[in-house]
Amino acid sequence: MLAAVLAQAGAAPPKIAITETAAFDAASVPAFTGDYADVYAHLQKQRAADLAQLQRWVRQPSISAQDKGIDAMAELLRGDLQKLGFRDTALVPTSGHPGVYGYYDAGAEHTLVVYMMYDVQPIEPTGWKVDAFDGALVDDPKLGKVLMARGATNQKGPQRAFLNALDAVIQVRGKPPVNLIVLAEGEEELGSPHYPEVVAKYEAQLRKADGVFFPMNTQDRDGEASMFLGVKGILYLELEAKGNAKTGGPQKSEVHGSLAAKLDSPSWRLVQALATLTTPDGEIAVPGYRDAIRAPNVEEQRLFNGLVAKRAGDTQKQLDAFAAARWKNGRNDRDASAAELFDTTLNIDGLVAGYTGEGVKTILPHRAVAKVDSRLVPDQTPDEAVALIRKQLDAKGFDDIEIRKLSGYPPAQTSVEAPLTRAAIGTYRKHGFTPPVAPRIGGSAPYYVFTQTLGLPMIAGGLGHGSGAHAPNEYMVIEPLKGSKIAGLVQTEQFYVDLLYSLADALKQPKQ
Amino acid sequence: MLAAVLAQAGAAPPKIAITETAAFDAASVPAFTGDYADVYAHLQKQRAADLAQLQRWVRQPSISAQDKGIDAMAELLRGDLQKLGFRDTALVPTSGHPGVYGYYDAGAEHTLVVYMMYDVQPIEPTGWKVDAFDGALVDDPKLGKVLMARGATNQKGPQRAFLNALDAVIQVRGKPPVNLIVLAEGEEELGSPHYPEVVAKYEAQLRKADGVFFPMNTQDRDGEASMFLGVKGILYLELEAKGNAKTGGPQKSEVHGSLAAKLDSPSWRLVQALATLTTPDGEIAVPGYRDAIRAPNVEEQRLFNGLVAKRAGDTQKQLDAFAAARWKNGRNDRDASAAELFDTTLNIDGLVAGYTGEGVKTILPHRAVAKVDSRLVPDQTPDEAVALIRKQLDAKGFDDIEIRKLSGYPPAQTSVEAPLTRAAIGTYRKHGFTPPVAPRIGGSAPYYVFTQTLGLPMIAGGLGHGSGAHAPNEYMVIEPLKGSKIAGLVQTEQFYVDLLYSLADALKQPKQ
Repeated sequence: MLAAVLAQAGAAPPKIAITETAAFDAASVPAFTGDYADVYAHLQKQRAADLAQLQRWVRQPSISAQDKGIDAMAELLRGDLQKLGFRDTALVPTSGHPGVYGYYDAGAEHTLVVYMMYDVQPIEPTGWKVDAFDGALVDDPKLGKVLMARGATNQKGPQRAFLNALDAVIQVRGKPPVNLIVLAEGEEELGSPHYPEVVAKYEAQLRKADGVFFPMNTQDRDGEASMFLGVKGILYLELEAKGNAKTGGPQKSEVHGSLAAKLDSPSWRLVQALATLTTPDGEIAVPGYRDAIRAPNVEEQRLFNGLVAKRAGDTQKQLDAFAAARWKNGRNDRDASAAELFDTTLNIDGLVAGYTGEGVKTILPHRAVAKVDSRLVPDQTPDEAVALIRKQLDAKGFDDIEIRKLSGYPPAQTSVEAPLTRAAIGTYRKHGFTPPVAPRIGGSAPYYVFTQTLGLPMIAGGLGHGSGAHAPNEYMVIEPLKGSKIAGLVQTEQFYVDLLYSLADALKQPKQ
Repeated sequence: MLAAVLAQAGAAPPKIAITETAAFDAASVPAFTGDYADVYAHLQKQRAADLAQLQRWVRQPSISAQDKGIDAMAELLRGDLQKLGFRDTALVPTSGHPGVYGYYDAGAEHTLVVYMMYDVQPIEPTGWKVDAFDGALVDDPKLGKVLMARGATNQKGPQRAFLNALDAVIQVRGKPPVNLIVLAEGEEELGSPHYPEVVAKYEAQLRKADGVFFPMNTQDRDGEASMFLGVKGILYLELEAKGNAKTGGPQKSEVHGSLAAKLDSPSWRLVQALATLTTPDGEIAVPGYRDAIRAPNVEEQRLFNGLVAKRAGDTQKQLDAFAAARWKNGRNDRDASAAELFDTTLNIDGLVAGYTGEGVKTILPHRAVAKVDSRLVPDQTPDEAVALIRKQLDAKGFDDIEIRKLSGYPPAQTSVEAPLTRAAIGTYRKHGFTPPVAPRIGGSAPYYVFTQTLGLPMIAGGLGHGSGAHAPNEYMVIEPLKGSKIAGLVQTEQFYVDLLYSLADALKQPKQ
């Protein structure tokens, strides 16, 4: 129980006990030694055609939140899998947007699942230098030639680069070294509400698989690559106060602001209810909220120590990335990193009530809503977390506050000792990188369907650099400046070739 | 000091001591006896032309918030005053929209100021049955023929009806019984930020005037007329929390929601800061906030008793108007009415931070804003009120919360014993009404520029019924159903004729 090691006196940030002193170092893993010069050469030759494939993907809109181009993109992906030689392909109907399934029978003993997402974020109304769906190539003076488009890095660029690599393997070597199941969803940007339906449909096939991979650009602007072995879970809630029979307030529509003298205010009620969930300094104040959290295990502590050593001296660079003056409530670097990896959160994503425009309008709104998310670490569960929030609100007299659960799934994690993980690290080592390896990231993804539901190891990674995933001018570097450590499209694809063979080797080893 | 009589133990609503037992009754004021049958007849004859004048006014858009048609409406009003025989007319430039000035020299000893507003609210995007600027006449099965248009009742309808009445007086009797100054603004719906500039420009002339009048429809759907003698002041603030050097948080833009583990949240900070301003039940908790409030004086208590007597048995009807199940924190009818008249408020008009749309988006917003208004009663002042809020936030450690004052002015009041008030009551009495007379309303208007800056008595009123001032399908009744107590346009204008003569008589009496 992490609670035992969290000192929560007043507004003091929680302390997470790290008792191990050893640090994991990716340099301890030998470099992968496979030689695929013939496939490398093919990719070099195919450069223009492969870039055209990335452009073709980003030119097809697929905005899940607005159901824009979703069906066309799903069919485009399915068709591409078919062309690549996937024997069985299918659109997978769900209660939401369809999934896409593809099975490549390489006649191999083992099977690798490739998780994909084919949807993208909505287009920001301002700030784009190019049309977000033009597939434009732009010269960035600091980075080189980049593909600037919605989905360029999140996630069409790396995913199609992986398929380009697979295509090269098939063209040159006849078939991949492992059977492949591609299982894609079109609702990642919506919190993957229906991905479990897609997984359930193919559960029998998936249970025969040996591991899961997700292609992604992991290099930063300086070309440093990194790895992570897990994700946090998430609980996403709307808390709503509205006029009601018990606590009063207008029930049908806003009323004149002067009526605050004699009518209850749902907005004040929401503010006061929310205020019971944190300390004045914004630390979680829900009783028992951290009780389920297990303390970092030895492996996690070793990974943490390795990360902290890599990050040493980077404080300003890290804070600058968020334009922040300090870490939360004065945490030091080490505590901030520990919180990001091992602590849960309670975050306000949005607040809305009444008049939100410019200037003066005097109303007493009949409803007020907060959007709140909580990142879940082992062994928190979404249902227990929401129950504790409900209990606190009830205990403080706010049983009239409605809680709506919009999304919720548990965390996911793979061991650094898993053969799949070591294979991935070895591939980075072959390409000259010794990545920091995080036990997990602060963000969330529905990987639990693989690690927890199916019990499979899962790894995400790749070379390549992109940014702007949920912002204007999203890009992925195609041709970096000379001297840059960033991999261009060709090297990114070559890395995926190595990784595919390296992972295939790993799948032959006993699972850990 | 009202503080002495406010019991604020926990969430108990404040008690306002009413020690007087006598009640004011408008029936104690004799009916006005003037006879203007010749002017009445003229108005009857002019019916169609006068209605066309109202339509002409509402067909000219004048949305102050969007600067739509403002200059044209200002010029239309100025031109109309000129045509009516106002000797001096002018557009009055301000830092915002222009004011309009007109002086009618009747060669009289006394002068009445007529306050007007020529601006209207923006058009609601949905819900209008007719074009808001068509000046449509609509048959309402429960009310009769109504003019349905933006500004029909707020405030073009009653104002032009008053000018129609004035025109009739001039046509039939040669001149009005009193000199008139019309002083209009085009920013009432914005909180009258520049009206003091308009007043300052004509201060010399205004100081020679004897009283102020504002034409308005005061009849409800049942035809009951009412009067009020004052308005509350207002303080309108924006409270903003944002990332900053002292308390941390992202300073430039939203960041990923998972960063709540290590970055401070301006949204939680705003929530916690706001929570220090009220009790958990939403009662004001700012120390000293009510200290400046003077207890209701004898006149106010007598008026209050009269009002309560008139409202007896109306609880459900009153609550139904707001779709509310009870009064604030269980106040009884009497305490609710007392609070509306004599207590200050602290109301959340709006809350906004981060993502406010449908569904899931996980961000940690870099800023959060609350729009808050406070209604001010004697002897509160906007500056003292904002200083107390600032002091409370500072005392609780929230000195990083920025307070922006968007609007602020003091309350205004005229005595029920003022000759102007008695003249207005007498006019209602002549028309068969015995109105409840409120010492003030819960709402705010910048009447202080007259009552406080210039020391003039001010009265607002008229017959007529309209509704939807800040809502779709705003209307004013033109021709009521048979048997209705609501005054149609002609009777509304005839009332203004009586009122003009009655007020003129009153201005000859010594001021109280």
